[in-house]
Amino acid sequence: MSGDHFEFAHAEGGITAPLGFLASAVSTGLKKSGKRDLCIIAGDRLCRAAAVFTTSATAAPPVLVSREHMSGGLLRAVVVNAGNANACTGESGLADARAMAAATARSLGCAAGEVAVCSTGVIGVPLPMDLVTAGIAEAGSGLDSRNGDDAAEAIMTTDTFAKQLAICVTAEGRTFTVGGMAKGSGMIQPNMATMLAFITTDAPLSPASCDSFLRTAVGRSFNRITVDSDTSTNDTCVLMASGAEGGGELTHGSVEHDAVGAAICEVATALAQMVVRDGEGATKFVTVTVRGARDEADAERAAFSIANSPLMKTALFGEDANWGRVAMALGKSGASIDMALLEIVFAGIVTCRYGAAVPFDEAEAAVLLARPEIDIEVDLHMGEGEATVWTCDFSYDYVRINGDYRS
Amino acid sequence: MSGDHFEFAHAEGGITAPLGFLASAVSTGLKKSGKRDLCIIAGDRLCRAAAVFTTSATAAPPVLVSREHMSGGLLRAVVVNAGNANACTGESGLADARAMAAATARSLGCAAGEVAVCSTGVIGVPLPMDLVTAGIAEAGSGLDSRNGDDAAEAIMTTDTFAKQLAICVTAEGRTFTVGGMAKGSGMIQPNMATMLAFITTDAPLSPASCDSFLRTAVGRSFNRITVDSDTSTNDTCVLMASGAEGGGELTHGSVEHDAVGAAICEVATALAQMVVRDGEGATKFVTVTVRGARDEADAERAAFSIANSPLMKTALFGEDANWGRVAMALGKSGASIDMALLEIVFAGIVTCRYGAAVPFDEAEAAVLLARPEIDIEVDLHMGEGEATVWTCDFSYDYVRINGDYRS
Repeated sequence: MSGDHFEFAHAEGGITAPLGFLASAVSTGLKKSGKRDLCIIAGDRLCRAAAVFTTSATAAPPVLVSREHMSGGLLRAVVVNAGNANACTGESGLADARAMAAATARSLGCAAGEVAVCSTGVIGVPLPMDLVTAGIAEAGSGLDSRNGDDAAEAIMTTDTFAKQLAICVTAEGRTFTVGGMAKGSGMIQPNMATMLAFITTDAPLSPASCDSFLRTAVGRSFNRITVDSDTSTNDTCVLMASGAEGGGELTHGSVEHDAVGAAICEVATALAQMVVRDGEGATKFVTVTVRGARDEADAERAAFSIANSPLMKTALFGEDANWGRVAMALGKSGASIDMALLEIVFAGIVTCRYGAAVPFDEAEAAVLLARPEIDIEVDLHMGEGEATVWTCDFSYDYVRINGDYRS
Repeated sequence: MSGDHFEFAHAEGGITAPLGFLASAVSTGLKKSGKRDLCIIAGDRLCRAAAVFTTSATAAPPVLVSREHMSGGLLRAVVVNAGNANACTGESGLADARAMAAATARSLGCAAGEVAVCSTGVIGVPLPMDLVTAGIAEAGSGLDSRNGDDAAEAIMTTDTFAKQLAICVTAEGRTFTVGGMAKGSGMIQPNMATMLAFITTDAPLSPASCDSFLRTAVGRSFNRITVDSDTSTNDTCVLMASGAEGGGELTHGSVEHDAVGAAICEVATALAQMVVRDGEGATKFVTVTVRGARDEADAERAAFSIANSPLMKTALFGEDANWGRVAMALGKSGASIDMALLEIVFAGIVTCRYGAAVPFDEAEAAVLLARPEIDIEVDLHMGEGEATVWTCDFSYDYVRINGDYRS
């Protein structure tokens, strides 16, 4: 993929692929498995940064602390633990989140306000701060630009694979790298950000550019995915720009500026799709596109209603061409619909036109529905609104994974 | 249960328990099993009536036709088929729904506009009208006050038991009977009415009283249940009042009028709870109560967010005291919440107070969560708003049932 005046290339690694970034990951014992569960992502200098957070009214203490620390648009590091969300932990949870920032700042020699804090895992259990503080000290002494893979592994909870990538973009003779990593598998219908995602770049960006690039990217990526319609208390997405590429700060409207913005959007979309592919118990990757809506908000409403319907998702797991459930989900979505214009293309088969069933070949449908990637396309034929949402099916394994998550 | 000046007593049967009602159920072949799949519920005279319908924008043809026929507040009969929802069937589906009303009217000697039509089952398949028309003629000739049980069985789809009851209420020396039946097991988060429910009474009510009683009852019963957050294209709830009790029409504000209204609400609530108990794959009956909300709308929003959360429902299936998911669901609900005031009582155990975790005994929790009925109580401590919503858990069987519904 590329723009008119720039093109993307694949790069090795993830968040430490851009110049100027280091990482370190350790095992503190928060995960019963003994796997790595705490990491620090740090700039080798103070970075321009932006972040978006969950809109949940029960946002966790690390979200509250990070929101505070982001106010200046500058970050030296992010500290992340997995295995415990430090959510619903009250005043002591808030003190623990502040202590995580302070411990990280001590080991890096920066201010606590230059550190963002993220936690993910079980809700309502106090953090064992002796383990966490010791882990931060250990991680702080092991920072290295070769540790990106370890960091991507350390933030996993029910994830079955580490989610990271990096791309380079070249424009006007300058080359910038954008890297990212994310975690998330359940409790996924982010609202302003996914569970945890981190994007780094060596491009010299202003804090305002960081903020605007991140909001645009998140709106078209993490805010357009759903696994189970549940919104986490800890959703956080952070962008850090080191400026280590070395050239002058990119100015709004320049080709280089556009190129970096597009690359950030590309990385965010790829990470968001990885989260859906790793949705708890998922056996299908489903792309729901609604066109012809009255406006984009209506298209998004309709697409999410389809993507979140338990009946739709179980039908996809069962490889059943039960397209009537798409019509049902549209009906309850609140989007403006004229039944007489409705068109549904289910896994490539036209199943509904002018609001009425179109006969189709069940044998052909069975073959198409056995594929691991399914497209559901709706045209409301009412306007220009369009939105694409990515989701997965609902399987026995979703029930199994979430029936005994704490045990 | 009883009011100040009246009391309820159990009665035998369902929709034909009140005086002046007949029913008949036949097998037309719409259900592959060969079980009864079409029924007529008829008054022995023209009845005062009211109905509420799905708010879905993709409402099915029978809903459109019944809405039209309800405009006068008078009904002689309802004809219902199961096994085919006659939804997403376009103009020919509309003609089929009208033909069902006309055929029923012919066999009863009334006007087609005095017949309501309901269909439930698979979406997007044309009705085999030859079978349906023959079935209506057969049913019309077999109407009898002893056939209530057969009718309750004929409207079942994935239901595992027939849902019906009847109660008597005595006030000021007069005794009225209210009977009802319902079907529904999946695609259940009714919005203004559940899938299909029918309530009859021999009380002499005006059409205005029918309408007001039905709306109040539905608001506190069918509109407060959820199995899977999905809203059907065919939801319909009909109330018919024969007046066969024989006394003068009940006047607004009288004790008898209040008594019949309360009895209708009682029958609607009992039927709604039966629908949840028979939720597809359900192993738990869950009562979610939110108190102390800013207002009732906020309480309802919060209670539904908990009741619909797939993570909450799978935790209940797994008998896991994962109360943090209640906090998560509250956070995404849109209700006003002050974390510092939040209290959660999970299956009788105080797990969260002042927004922070309260340690509890896991062994005790395991015993309480093994019970078939679970209460989740939330106090937001912000106002007087209160709402109770009934739901069930999410099990492997929900996935199994809905993965191969059509096959």
